[in-house]
Amino acid sequence: MEDEAPFGPLIWKRGALLLLDQTLLPGEVKWRSCATAEDVAQAIAERRVRGATAVAIAAAYGVALAARQRVGEAGSARLMQNAVEEAVEKMRRATPASSHVFMALAQVRDAARVSVETADAFMVADAVEARARAVHAEDVARCQRLGSAGAELIADGATVLTLGNYGALATGGWGTSLGVLRSAWRSCRRARVIVCESRPLLDGARLTAWELERDGFDVTVIPDGAAHGLLQRREVSMVLLGADRVSGDGDVVGELGGYGVALAAAAAAVPVVVAAIAACIDPAMSLDVGAVSPAVLRAAATPPFGVPERVALRCPGGDVIPGALIGAIVTERGVHRPPWPTSLRS
Amino acid sequence: MEDEAPFGPLIWKRGALLLLDQTLLPGEVKWRSCATAEDVAQAIAERRVRGATAVAIAAAYGVALAARQRVGEAGSARLMQNAVEEAVEKMRRATPASSHVFMALAQVRDAARVSVETADAFMVADAVEARARAVHAEDVARCQRLGSAGAELIADGATVLTLGNYGALATGGWGTSLGVLRSAWRSCRRARVIVCESRPLLDGARLTAWELERDGFDVTVIPDGAAHGLLQRREVSMVLLGADRVSGDGDVVGELGGYGVALAAAAAAVPVVVAAIAACIDPAMSLDVGAVSPAVLRAAATPPFGVPERVALRCPGGDVIPGALIGAIVTERGVHRPPWPTSLRS
Repeated sequence: MEDEAPFGPLIWKRGALLLLDQTLLPGEVKWRSCATAEDVAQAIAERRVRGATAVAIAAAYGVALAARQRVGEAGSARLMQNAVEEAVEKMRRATPASSHVFMALAQVRDAARVSVETADAFMVADAVEARARAVHAEDVARCQRLGSAGAELIADGATVLTLGNYGALATGGWGTSLGVLRSAWRSCRRARVIVCESRPLLDGARLTAWELERDGFDVTVIPDGAAHGLLQRREVSMVLLGADRVSGDGDVVGELGGYGVALAAAAAAVPVVVAAIAACIDPAMSLDVGAVSPAVLRAAATPPFGVPERVALRCPGGDVIPGALIGAIVTERGVHRPPWPTSLRS
Repeated sequence: MEDEAPFGPLIWKRGALLLLDQTLLPGEVKWRSCATAEDVAQAIAERRVRGATAVAIAAAYGVALAARQRVGEAGSARLMQNAVEEAVEKMRRATPASSHVFMALAQVRDAARVSVETADAFMVADAVEARARAVHAEDVARCQRLGSAGAELIADGATVLTLGNYGALATGGWGTSLGVLRSAWRSCRRARVIVCESRPLLDGARLTAWELERDGFDVTVIPDGAAHGLLQRREVSMVLLGADRVSGDGDVVGELGGYGVALAAAAAAVPVVVAAIAACIDPAMSLDVGAVSPAVLRAAATPPFGVPERVALRCPGGDVIPGALIGAIVTERGVHRPPWPTSLRS
């Protein structure tokens, strides 16, 4: 489908995982080589790889590395299966809980369950590695299907406002919301992109601006508080957001700041499009924004700059955007539109 | 009216102006002594004093310093009047254009217009200095009247969300929106305050948090993008904003981010109160948010952090909040409520 493998933050090369160190971006482009599962766990803990999907793929590769490490000592297929189970458990504990990580680890564990009658340790390790690579490749293909579906919503010459980083860097490559922009670009629909800097971690200013600029997009970074005024003055033709989870009512859990931007877009009649892989949608889940759990609003990130000592800091980990403010939700299955309960079940 | 002079960023002491260096807050509390008008102009250019009212008072003191410098050479009252006119013109050029600066400078110039028949250069310089001190004292008194009027809107135990710095540091002392909180505190209405960090200059995190914490308030700093979600979850009982200008329709030009916060407050039925001295209200002015001039949206401030080279930055200098989103506008004259055209004329 693609001429060449698209750019992504993870490269599997001769039995090692190369991770683009996202803590150093945009100033320095440095790849970090992980030879062991412990290296991968540390890179995740230090946020050198981030974004639920990219972390899930890294975790799957971590299990593959653990299997490769043990292949000499664990002679039999059964011992290797046990080693893989241990590695899966270890990576699960080393990564923030998410359905992406859960699914990726389940896949590599399943791959190890070959027939112990006919296989040896090497064959199990090979199967685990092959599955980790498949998990990675499938994510890229899925994001590209999502991108193609979403591209039709981008008018040529559109000015698109986005925030956070749901891009190549947060996935195996391509990205969800930024993948839509990439796919639109391929089909010759050029969008100007305005990116909120996305405090507290500045994922917009540091990461989204970097990866879009790298791909040749016209990118402008604004402070988060400027987005609403730009919408009010109709300087934006579309808002494009990523999502961590989507409820059956179309309520979206996503990047901090998304709710305010969606409100301002609604007030200006500017469409809000959310991009998410289908696995993020949980039709059975219902989000009560009035009593949203701290687990849904992820834990606080870095503190703001320059705050006096003795002053309290608070940073919710995300926003809940009511489905009523959203015009379309794009997944790899296609474009969903309200009413959500029927549309999201299809 | 007050037991002691309230804290402010300017102190006139033995013929010199002491300015609290706001570029060093909150890390360092350092007063900068200005002995000449040039010192004052430099401090304004370097934003060591900021906030339209504080800058206007500093400019008036700058003229007083210039008069004092020239008192030896300019023997006659008439020569001193010319020197004052020159100094007024010099300070006007050294300060960002605002009605506050215009009015303060007009006052010291008028003070110099004593009878040249009976006065000498010393008397003119004394009159200018006395008027500069009066401009300062009148601002504090005006903010305290505004504060008393607004205090009745603060319920004891309220959680108040604010942004930017319209406080003691931005005025002669006391402040407008933060002055309302101070006056409420005096009348035993204790408010918990949530402050947006207020990018790009972090005036909320650096200045508002500092001056409120200094006065004993319970202050929490949040990233700008978190404000809307807190309002959505009804964790805020009131939004309190400052203003640079107010139109006859109650449209308010103020700190960047104010529009998004006001939208989210309206969606959650949380009242939005704007504090502004009456001189900020221009009943004849009409603000078209769709075609707001770059002069109204002040020039770009510091760039966001960590943006890749070659990526464009953009930062409007403020927001326009439609009067329809505002529940009350408090001035030193009292509390104004919609409908604005009739209410603001009184």
